[in-house]
Amino acid sequence: MVSDAFADRIDQLARLAVHVGLGSVEGRELLITAPLDAVALARRISHYAYAAGATVVTTLYGDDVATLDRFATASDASFDSAPAWLFDGMANAFRSGAARLAIVGDDPSLLGGQDPARVARANRARSIAYRPALDLIARSAINWTIVSAATPAWAKAVFPKLTEQDAVAALWDAIFKASRADGEDPLADWQAHNANLKARGDLMNAKRYKALRYKGPGTDLEVGLCDGHIWCGGASRAENGILFNANIPTEEIFTTPHRMRVQGTVAATKPLSYQGTLIQDISVKFVDGAIVEAHARTGEDVLKRILETDEGARRLGEVALVPHASPISQSGILFYSTLFDENASSHIALGQAYAKTVKGGGTMGEADLLANGINQSLIHIDWMIGSDQIDIDGVTSEGTLEPVMRQGAWT
Amino acid sequence: MVSDAFADRIDQLARLAVHVGLGSVEGRELLITAPLDAVALARRISHYAYAAGATVVTTLYGDDVATLDRFATASDASFDSAPAWLFDGMANAFRSGAARLAIVGDDPSLLGGQDPARVARANRARSIAYRPALDLIARSAINWTIVSAATPAWAKAVFPKLTEQDAVAALWDAIFKASRADGEDPLADWQAHNANLKARGDLMNAKRYKALRYKGPGTDLEVGLCDGHIWCGGASRAENGILFNANIPTEEIFTTPHRMRVQGTVAATKPLSYQGTLIQDISVKFVDGAIVEAHARTGEDVLKRILETDEGARRLGEVALVPHASPISQSGILFYSTLFDENASSHIALGQAYAKTVKGGGTMGEADLLANGINQSLIHIDWMIGSDQIDIDGVTSEGTLEPVMRQGAWT
Repeated sequence: MVSDAFADRIDQLARLAVHVGLGSVEGRELLITAPLDAVALARRISHYAYAAGATVVTTLYGDDVATLDRFATASDASFDSAPAWLFDGMANAFRSGAARLAIVGDDPSLLGGQDPARVARANRARSIAYRPALDLIARSAINWTIVSAATPAWAKAVFPKLTEQDAVAALWDAIFKASRADGEDPLADWQAHNANLKARGDLMNAKRYKALRYKGPGTDLEVGLCDGHIWCGGASRAENGILFNANIPTEEIFTTPHRMRVQGTVAATKPLSYQGTLIQDISVKFVDGAIVEAHARTGEDVLKRILETDEGARRLGEVALVPHASPISQSGILFYSTLFDENASSHIALGQAYAKTVKGGGTMGEADLLANGINQSLIHIDWMIGSDQIDIDGVTSEGTLEPVMRQGAWT
Repeated sequence: MVSDAFADRIDQLARLAVHVGLGSVEGRELLITAPLDAVALARRISHYAYAAGATVVTTLYGDDVATLDRFATASDASFDSAPAWLFDGMANAFRSGAARLAIVGDDPSLLGGQDPARVARANRARSIAYRPALDLIARSAINWTIVSAATPAWAKAVFPKLTEQDAVAALWDAIFKASRADGEDPLADWQAHNANLKARGDLMNAKRYKALRYKGPGTDLEVGLCDGHIWCGGASRAENGILFNANIPTEEIFTTPHRMRVQGTVAATKPLSYQGTLIQDISVKFVDGAIVEAHARTGEDVLKRILETDEGARRLGEVALVPHASPISQSGILFYSTLFDENASSHIALGQAYAKTVKGGGTMGEADLLANGINQSLIHIDWMIGSDQIDIDGVTSEGTLEPVMRQGAWT
């Protein structure tokens, strides 16, 4: 049963997705991707997009059942294929100005029982096909956003002890809260939140640290930052001029690490769900920017194959700071979804860097990007390394240490 | 409740769709379009396609709710737009060898309450965007097929007096029967059926009629046939070499009329549902191939706008013969769906011709196609003009008349 109160909250989230997430869709197409279980939210987002002047809204539905059946049924040769025509089509949509909205709600361990080699091959084929579209998103050629919907499989993963119905209701509750969609005036709440994140980024930008140093259980890591790095957070401006919020929720400020200047060991503080594989208790060692050793309690095989995707897959493309006091972290819920878990915890990302968070990066060619330490890869995978047991110091240009976070809190 | 027996029949239909409809998908991608209400059938078709060696199956779901909401909500400027990137992507998929399967089950009067001018603009924008993909389908560059699923809105239109649940069950029954999916060995049944249709086409090809003449209530029509026309029916061979059945069900033999040689009046014998508009009691007058007068009891405004799509929209692209004894006709059910109703009744189609049903047509450029009387248009809309009150004569090269059908039955 869908109560009116629930429908109202779905409406609030849909409105936020269009007006805060995308910012504007007037006179533009909108391309939505969504799980089949998120039809209700997708329809309301489509509605508010049309009401805001979108020309055509196209929703591409993904189906976990069909995905899983492919692994059970398809010929082995299938797993090196991806629908390039569709991903190229998406890139063409962005080139002609379409905005992009992803609704995520995937089963975090959908492919847990499948052959890791096949999973890796399918991921790689998909990453290669998706690259042109991802490049346009990564440099924010157009406005884009990611929101989430509570699907049954995901809800049961987050709340395994609840019935499916109760789990879905509990996960929706958590999504509404974490997305700051449950207040009296969510649009005003987001305006204030964006201002806070911007102020925090400005503070860090004034410091011009050359590196961050992380200490905690299993972690002794130095992450060098790119010269000219810029800390960003909250709303940002796309190349089409539109102010948008790429993630709902978002609690992070983030910038670009130097691809050659990462040293030491780091242990993940939350599990990572990547394309249907749950990777738990990741622990890796970096030398001169590259991961030279990688372990995980579950999904290690898939993790190692991810690192072999290309040269940039074992190097960092993003470093982000999130206080342990973030509302998502304080909810105590482990979401098994990067969109939430990365906003409950300081994190780093393997692979592709956002060139825009380095001065002049937006106009550099690939050779210059690499020369300036800005990593390039088919993948971009965030993983969580923050907690209330992690201390972070900034390393000044003189090499002295200044406290940035203590036990996960801003100093 | 879904019974095992029902699941078995869905499986039979899915198997037919892959093995008879598409013929083969081995080593190919498959692109499915389907209404959201047809998820169950789409998943089983995807399953049998993977089992038959498809590399990637991509299902694009359409959503009547979102389509209708667009008409209620979007800005007026929206209605000249279509997602060209998606249709171009589909064309690219076909160029790289993907097979194509459409599941139809649309609400026949979805857009009945909407502004006809907007409906026509949206249809036209869609037709223009879809043209490159449609061209590849029309010349069977790849194997393709259309099957159907009983959706609630469609079922209620067909069986308005039944409850939704009973209507859906009754429509599924009718679909299974009409699709010859309910026998002991549907694949063998289709082999025999294809042989019958081929024999009927061969008979007509031996006659080399220069025209067909139709007489009945409201109808006094002569349809000239292209020189070198070929009657086809049942399975055909795509340019990729695969033998496929483009429609499930199919009961017709069809060929190409001459775009300049149609004279007289004709009254439709069944309503036509086109892109959500129900057009009833069509009656038109042809002079030298072109419709010069058109009337309809409902949907006349949409019909007239369709005829204005382009020069070829008011001329014929297909003529097809179906005996009144066809099982679909004998079911007595009016399906409000071209896929079924056209196979219950002799019909003609406005717009784009199939070049392959004329000797040498497959390799002609547009100028030659037109010079040979093979019509070109953005649209291809079948409408039903046969019944048990229609007599059809063949006009021999000497101008004498030979009976082809009497009261809707082969002579």
